Amino acid sequence: MTPTDLGLDELQAYRPELPEPQDFDEFWQRTLAEARAHGDAVKVERVTAQWGLHTVEVDDVRFPGWNGEPVAAWLLRPRGATGPLPVVVTYIGYCGGRGRPTEHLFWSAAGFAELVVDSRGQGRDTPDRGEGDGTQWVEGFMTKGIDSPENHYHRRLITDCVRAVDAVGQLPGLDPDRVVVTGGSQGGGLALAVAGLTGDKVSAVMPDVPFLCHFREGARTSLDGPYQEIVKYLRWHSQDRMEPTFETLDYFDGINFAKRATAPALFSVGLMDPVCPPRTVYAAFNHYAGEDRAMTVWPFADHGGGCGANPPAQLSWLLDRGSAPEL
Amino acid sequence: MTPTDLGLDELQAYRPELPEPQDFDEFWQRTLAEARAHGDAVKVERVTAQWGLHTVEVDDVRFPGWNGEPVAAWLLRPRGATGPLPVVVTYIGYCGGRGRPTEHLFWSAAGFAELVVDSRGQGRDTPDRGEGDGTQWVEGFMTKGIDSPENHYHRRLITDCVRAVDAVGQLPGLDPDRVVVTGGSQGGGLALAVAGLTGDKVSAVMPDVPFLCHFREGARTSLDGPYQEIVKYLRWHSQDRMEPTFETLDYFDGINFAKRATAPALFSVGLMDPVCPPRTVYAAFNHYAGEDRAMTVWPFADHGGGCGANPPAQLSWLLDRGSAPEL
Amino acid sequence: MTPTDLGLDELQAYRPELPEPQDFDEFWQRTLAEARAHGDAVKVERVTAQWGLHTVEVDDVRFPGWNGEPVAAWLLRPRGATGPLPVVVTYIGYCGGRGRPTEHLFWSAAGFAELVVDSRGQGRDTPDRGEGDGTQWVEGFMTKGIDSPENHYHRRLITDCVRAVDAVGQLPGLDPDRVVVTGGSQGGGLALAVAGLTGDKVSAVMPDVPFLCHFREGARTSLDGPYQEIVKYLRWHSQDRMEPTFETLDYFDGINFAKRATAPALFSVGLMDPVCPPRTVYAAFNHYAGEDRAMTVWPFADHGGGCGANPPAQLSWLLDRGSAPEL
Amino acid sequence: MTPTDLGLDELQAYRPELPEPQDFDEFWQRTLAEARAHGDAVKVERVTAQWGLHTVEVDDVRFPGWNGEPVAAWLLRPRGATGPLPVVVTYIGYCGGRGRPTEHLFWSAAGFAELVVDSRGQGRDTPDRGEGDGTQWVEGFMTKGIDSPENHYHRRLITDCVRAVDAVGQLPGLDPDRVVVTGGSQGGGLALAVAGLTGDKVSAVMPDVPFLCHFREGARTSLDGPYQEIVKYLRWHSQDRMEPTFETLDYFDGINFAKRATAPALFSVGLMDPVCPPRTVYAAFNHYAGEDRAMTVWPFADHGGGCGANPPAQLSWLLDRGSAPEL
Amino acid sequence: MTPTDLGLDELQAYRPELPEPQDFDEFWQRTLAEARAHGDAVKVERVTAQWGLHTVEVDDVRFPGWNGEPVAAWLLRPRGATGPLPVVVTYIGYCGGRGRPTEHLFWSAAGFAELVVDSRGQGRDTPDRGEGDGTQWVEGFMTKGIDSPENHYHRRLITDCVRAVDAVGQLPGLDPDRVVVTGGSQGGGLALAVAGLTGDKVSAVMPDVPFLCHFREGARTSLDGPYQEIVKYLRWHSQDRMEPTFETLDYFDGINFAKRATAPALFSVGLMDPVCPPRTVYAAFNHYAGEDRAMTVWPFADHGGGCGANPPAQLSWLLDRGSAPEL
Amino acid sequence: MTPTDLGLDELQAYRPELPEPQDFDEFWQRTLAEARAHGDAVKVERVTAQWGLHTVEVDDVRFPGWNGEPVAAWLLRPRGATGPLPVVVTYIGYCGGRGRPTEHLFWSAAGFAELVVDSRGQGRDTPDRGEGDGTQWVEGFMTKGIDSPENHYHRRLITDCVRAVDAVGQLPGLDPDRVVVTGGSQGGGLALAVAGLTGDKVSAVMPDVPFLCHFREGARTSLDGPYQEIVKYLRWHSQDRMEPTFETLDYFDGINFAKRATAPALFSVGLMDPVCPPRTVYAAFNHYAGEDRAMTVWPFADHGGGCGANPPAQLSWLLDRGSAPEL
Repeated sequence: MTPTDLGLDELQAYRPELPEPQDFDEFWQRTLAEARAHGDAVKVERVTAQWGLHTVEVDDVRFPGWNGEPVAAWLLRPRGATGPLPVVVTYIGYCGGRGRPTEHLFWSAAGFAELVVDSRGQGRDTPDRGEGDGTQWVEGFMTKGIDSPENHYHRRLITDCVRAVDAVGQLPGLDPDRVVVTGGSQGGGLALAVAGLTGDKVSAVMPDVPFLCHFREGARTSLDGPYQEIVKYLRWHSQDRMEPTFETLDYFDGINFAKRATAPALFSVGLMDPVCPPRTVYAAFNHYAGEDRAMTVWPFADHGGGCGANPPAQLSWLLDRGSAPEL
Repeated sequence: MTPTDLGLDELQAYRPELPEPQDFDEFWQRTLAEARAHGDAVKVERVTAQWGLHTVEVDDVRFPGWNGEPVAAWLLRPRGATGPLPVVVTYIGYCGGRGRPTEHLFWSAAGFAELVVDSRGQGRDTPDRGEGDGTQWVEGFMTKGIDSPENHYHRRLITDCVRAVDAVGQLPGLDPDRVVVTGGSQGGGLALAVAGLTGDKVSAVMPDVPFLCHFREGARTSLDGPYQEIVKYLRWHSQDRMEPTFETLDYFDGINFAKRATAPALFSVGLMDPVCPPRTVYAAFNHYAGEDRAMTVWPFADHGGGCGANPPAQLSWLLDRGSAPEL
Repeated sequence: MTPTDLGLDELQAYRPELPEPQDFDEFWQRTLAEARAHGDAVKVERVTAQWGLHTVEVDDVRFPGWNGEPVAAWLLRPRGATGPLPVVVTYIGYCGGRGRPTEHLFWSAAGFAELVVDSRGQGRDTPDRGEGDGTQWVEGFMTKGIDSPENHYHRRLITDCVRAVDAVGQLPGLDPDRVVVTGGSQGGGLALAVAGLTGDKVSAVMPDVPFLCHFREGARTSLDGPYQEIVKYLRWHSQDRMEPTFETLDYFDGINFAKRATAPALFSVGLMDPVCPPRTVYAAFNHYAGEDRAMTVWPFADHGGGCGANPPAQLSWLLDRGSAPEL
Repeated sequence: MTPTDLGLDELQAYRPELPEPQDFDEFWQRTLAEARAHGDAVKVERVTAQWGLHTVEVDDVRFPGWNGEPVAAWLLRPRGATGPLPVVVTYIGYCGGRGRPTEHLFWSAAGFAELVVDSRGQGRDTPDRGEGDGTQWVEGFMTKGIDSPENHYHRRLITDCVRAVDAVGQLPGLDPDRVVVTGGSQGGGLALAVAGLTGDKVSAVMPDVPFLCHFREGARTSLDGPYQEIVKYLRWHSQDRMEPTFETLDYFDGINFAKRATAPALFSVGLMDPVCPPRTVYAAFNHYAGEDRAMTVWPFADHGGGCGANPPAQLSWLLDRGSAPEL
Repeated sequence: MTPTDLGLDELQAYRPELPEPQDFDEFWQRTLAEARAHGDAVKVERVTAQWGLHTVEVDDVRFPGWNGEPVAAWLLRPRGATGPLPVVVTYIGYCGGRGRPTEHLFWSAAGFAELVVDSRGQGRDTPDRGEGDGTQWVEGFMTKGIDSPENHYHRRLITDCVRAVDAVGQLPGLDPDRVVVTGGSQGGGLALAVAGLTGDKVSAVMPDVPFLCHFREGARTSLDGPYQEIVKYLRWHSQDRMEPTFETLDYFDGINFAKRATAPALFSVGLMDPVCPPRTVYAAFNHYAGEDRAMTVWPFADHGGGCGANPPAQLSWLLDRGSAPEL
Repeated sequence: MTPTDLGLDELQAYRPELPEPQDFDEFWQRTLAEARAHGDAVKVERVTAQWGLHTVEVDDVRFPGWNGEPVAAWLLRPRGATGPLPVVVTYIGYCGGRGRPTEHLFWSAAGFAELVVDSRGQGRDTPDRGEGDGTQWVEGFMTKGIDSPENHYHRRLITDCVRAVDAVGQLPGLDPDRVVVTGGSQGGGLALAVAGLTGDKVSAVMPDVPFLCHFREGARTSLDGPYQEIVKYLRWHSQDRMEPTFETLDYFDGINFAKRATAPALFSVGLMDPVCPPRTVYAAFNHYAGEDRAMTVWPFADHGGGCGANPPAQLSWLLDRGSAPEL
């Protein structure tokens, strides 16, 4: 089936207003301050040999995330690299985790360091106990802690992701002035959130077919995927819970982060994406505050986007911006 | 999947004109007069004990419907109630019947009498022999007798439903001045038809996600459910049968009944309903002649509507209108 | 589609051996003792009026469950009943909760008290924070805490269900010698577990199309439903996690509870059930220790089982066993 | 998907015993005698010109069927043919009718006359009012009149089909000694029934992927199609209605007709047929009483069977048996 | 499901501009000239007897198509017809071939000759070796040779179809002044192409639910069928291949042929066609250059269009235009 | 859905006999000899820089395959490696090609050279013109050239794959005594074929969830995937083409290659694989001639098998056999 969203012209002009919580900035400043109060100590274990690798050096990293809880990550870099390396921080798509280091060999092969950040609860190595009563009324993470922004799952996950950028400064051999954040789908939404929350700490952001943007339209027009968890939830609670639900989600909406982000940005979108409808991606893109922003359009793509074509395209865009590693 | 109909604003303004048969009123006056000519004798058998019930009294009722044929119903009421009780007359959704009395315990628990009316042919206890040659070209009831309004299935079913209200007057202990008609889906369409045909005999009508409204748009835009029987039928007969088919169905269209109904009305609608698209529900609602009319909107609901939340909402709306039983 | 399991003859003889954890009894004794150590104080609030009910009295109950945490329940009984009433304790199917009291009107209409027990995390009113790290690798409850029997979700849920029977003794007007446990699907598995763990505290058990029986075959042969969460989980972890997973689930397997349960039992099974394959139901039934056990066979039913026919059948079976309320 | 029934060796040996109603022969003798008592008058109207045809002569035929009711048929024959022609009587698959004569041009092109018999209620031109109360609890014809063999739909339809063979004797230019009955799916089951009921009145029978054979196994093992109507019906009525339902259907089961049929027979079967599982076809074939019987096996076919390859194969088999028309 | 395209009014006004290749006419003149240079020798073998037919005469024809390669066809005509007969040239729908002559008996029964043209590669009897490297990146024919108009599959297929009309002149007993081209779906697109390329060589064209019209909108809005092969292909190649792909397809687009065709034309369209969306059919129809053009609208039809009603409708339209065979 | 094949015990004993073509060895000797007669010249182009890679060296290789036609491959190796490297030759799953070098970074990261071989026609870079007439009757490659083993697609593809091993000897820096062949699904079947055809030229073979094994059972029992192309083909041709089709496929059946292969082998199987049913994998495995053979069983896996867990498992198995690269 071919889902048909707005035409490309309409998408390029699509810039809907979204209610912004009055205390949005205060909420995030407080949240991040609390997390940072737990300190910056990072644990690193070299695991190259046990994975049988030769050309890359692999570290199993635990950095302090939300509430100071240890968040797992893989750090991969070209073996024997000496100078401070530019770093790509990669966030993961919905319901995956950091997986195995052998599944993340692209950026190190290209001469970058890469920090692959686990998603709490979704991956195997970073638990998420939950806040409040920890209950989720509908399967999945979109409604976990939906009763308040304080308790919502994505408050914790985004905090972890910001703290991953903080952790870069604690890891030897990395260049904190060249930190790129990226990811696909949920990972793209997370990268955008981090760009909006960390100011000039990130030098580029590359959200690929990003999720977590304009939840209201995502719920209304997606045909599949996790925006539908919100639909399922509101189907049972719709009269009393609709506004409070979206008010909670506003704190995690990519539009609100995009308005605050200024790093050079490379988005991508699949014009037949049933999971992250094009309008939701453009809604964030058209609000993006930075001037150097570009959209890679995959006209007939579904949520797979550019598939294998995307990493080389991202690499090329980065190199054009002078991020080449000196090896 | 998320079917997306018109936006809520557009729905609230959606008031399409529908061709009304010239002899609409005459057709129904004649139809009802013929049915009433068969007399009003109602048969009642007490069955409380055989269903093992204690707090409610249950009667197995047979009242004369179309052509005087006996239509089955359950009458439930609080055991030991003495004064004349307000009555809720419940009609059933497509392809169900009155079922068992144990499946209808809400209104009697709330102190009302409830008359649950079987649907001829669809349930177990009320046969429908059919009129004309009795043939249906496509499975289902929507095209049974589609060759003329005289022979169409819903002529007989709606007549039964009107006669159920007549029967209330024959049943001891009920208050004929407080008769509420309701039902979900087909049952909602039937309640609306009864409200349009009985004038001040009903004191309130509560059509829940009603079917049988604006057949032309229902056939064009529903994604599932019995409007599709019309599509299937017209797929094989479309050139010669399209206009006659819709002309027959106009006699049973909720829009035409809504224009004639004046009792206080509580509709409901699921904004993602693929079976009874929101526009078809609003088409009837926006033509409703009574001034006291309200719509319960379930924003993310499919054809399930408000599910378990609906009966309490209906009860609350009734109580607000002073229909409380005095027990 | 028609899923075809073993023939009826084969099912009636199907009695597979299941590994039983050596410390099964010790595990449950300890678990229940710990829960009971939190005391028996039950909170009761009368809510009849706010639900607009007349013939039944409704209490909103909170009783202490696992870890002493408050578990929500509805207590319904015929209004004005005086003598101690027999009680039906109802557990709920997968991913539902106690819902609204207006959805549970059968047993009180039949003169019984009914205690409808919420399922922690699955319903709205009883949170489940989780144990261990609270993480679930796969959506759903089957793998929540799958790392150990201590942490598994069903340890907590079954404890709540046993404590519901304990709570009956704290509630005035109920007859602790006539406590019937029942439920459909997951609720049936829970009723069976309670029967196996409480000895003569329950006077009858009625597991309807029960889930939670013979997880190994459930995972291997079900075509849909929550046994598939185990499949999904083991798909990603199959080599290292298969045995530990089933060893954890053995602590919650209906077969092991059936071997310990002696109250009169009425099971039901749908011979075309794709969710709880007939063989899994018979596996528990054929191990059931009590002599008075019967199976209601619905030959062509899927997981809907006997639908509306089941409650009257259960009532009739209970009345045959002399459980009639004296009203 | 590939439905896998028994292996071919097992199928060839599959000869299950089916309960045969004691009064089976008496039932059908009485049924046919009653129908024949209405007389043999056939109405014929030449319609060749209005269909714009040149090489074939087309008659619109109405012959007396069950209860003497007029059954529609097309009679096609080569234009200008003089001698008495062998006739192929064709019955139609489930939920179709005789359609247009332009859809039945094969047998006349091959030099035969063909009588294409409408199916009452299923086609456009032959109504079926129903017997008893005319109600069908489940959509479709399999349960229409399921309460008794007297009232069941297929009693009337099979009677029509036998009467079609009777009508051949009333139509000029046809050779009543060379009457072949055939059809696909339901049409195949009907041809088999006619062969079993008319003795030497038919000179050959060609049931193509026949339906209406061994209803018990059809309901248990089919994955799609009208045997599933029985499943759907018994899902709601299974305990009280199972045996009576199959006892009614035994009167219309191809196995019982096959035991009585002796004309040369050419069956066909698709070994991956999800609608008419191979075992149901072999069940009838292996009971067939005639010695000259053959099975065309389409090893990988679904219910489409041999598709366009089948008519030439049937023609060739007929010609081998000396049925060639002399033109 | 009911796919909803534009409303009928909008469709009737829908006349989108399509880029037309500058060398469109030159490309086709060259292509056809090269094919015709291979000569006109047609091979004919009488096969009436081996198919057992009596009223029609059947020839197995091989005529020179693209590159002079032999293209298979069936020629059917009324047996014994003497005068020059009007001819219907039939092209076949996607992924079918000429099949068996016994599947094409309508036009000869109506007194016409019919030439049923095999589709190279798609049927059994006419191979297609391919051009260029012969590779197709996506299953199916839409992207076979998509690298250039020279190599594209439909260049060869359309050439065959034009040469079929040329071959009519070589076949005795046919009237080259009364050549009608027709077909459904792909066959309709081919008929339209032939009408556009052969000028007054065809006396009428009847494209039934035609495919191959407005590929850009077909890819964007179809929900099923072979336009989706283009989507699948562009999903993997979308950035570099989108424009070149549609530029190649412009050479085979029905809109461009419609602009050049002048013979009387009878189109048909199903307003709920998910395979050939109504807008694509109207896009060609509204550009059709001939003045005598009509559209048969099947309002509720999917891609089945008018089914069995279509051939009689076409015959009637032809007879109105004086094409009656004199027999 | 959970497809259930034989139990694990039965699978381990499943060793069906398959007809072996009399000239099987002669056919392949001749085929390979013809291909080798075209010479061994390999073209190599360094492309590391244009892909932006640093730690690996990438060559775009074209080696002579079937008929001497150039077959594309990527050669990846650790940058700066000097000694002769062990090589992993990777074949690709159905309907994919070599893709981009950035998608194949595992083996070089582990210190091996890897030669990733394109599949003719299926990928982008190696065309397949076809043999005979080049026609395929059913979409897909399984029936391309099905008329004879000479013309079948897999004759050419397997020849390419053998020639890839030959090419290793032409590439500097590789160790021809340590050549491992591997691949998933179709790639696994190809690796097995190469192991059977090249004797001691390969030092290990690792077929992962292999396809192309026991086509007869694959067609009969698979639920999805390319074995179904055979079903689709035989559905239309089943009577005349069944035996010839399987006789052609016997030349490409993994069972026949397994009987001839002796290198250490690591198979894998998913016990719930609907595409390559477990029995087809065990059929080849249980015939495997080499003594050092192992099966990695993924008990609940579908065709995804061990996913990301598989490459590390393969690496570990190789290192256990002393294949470690000396870097």
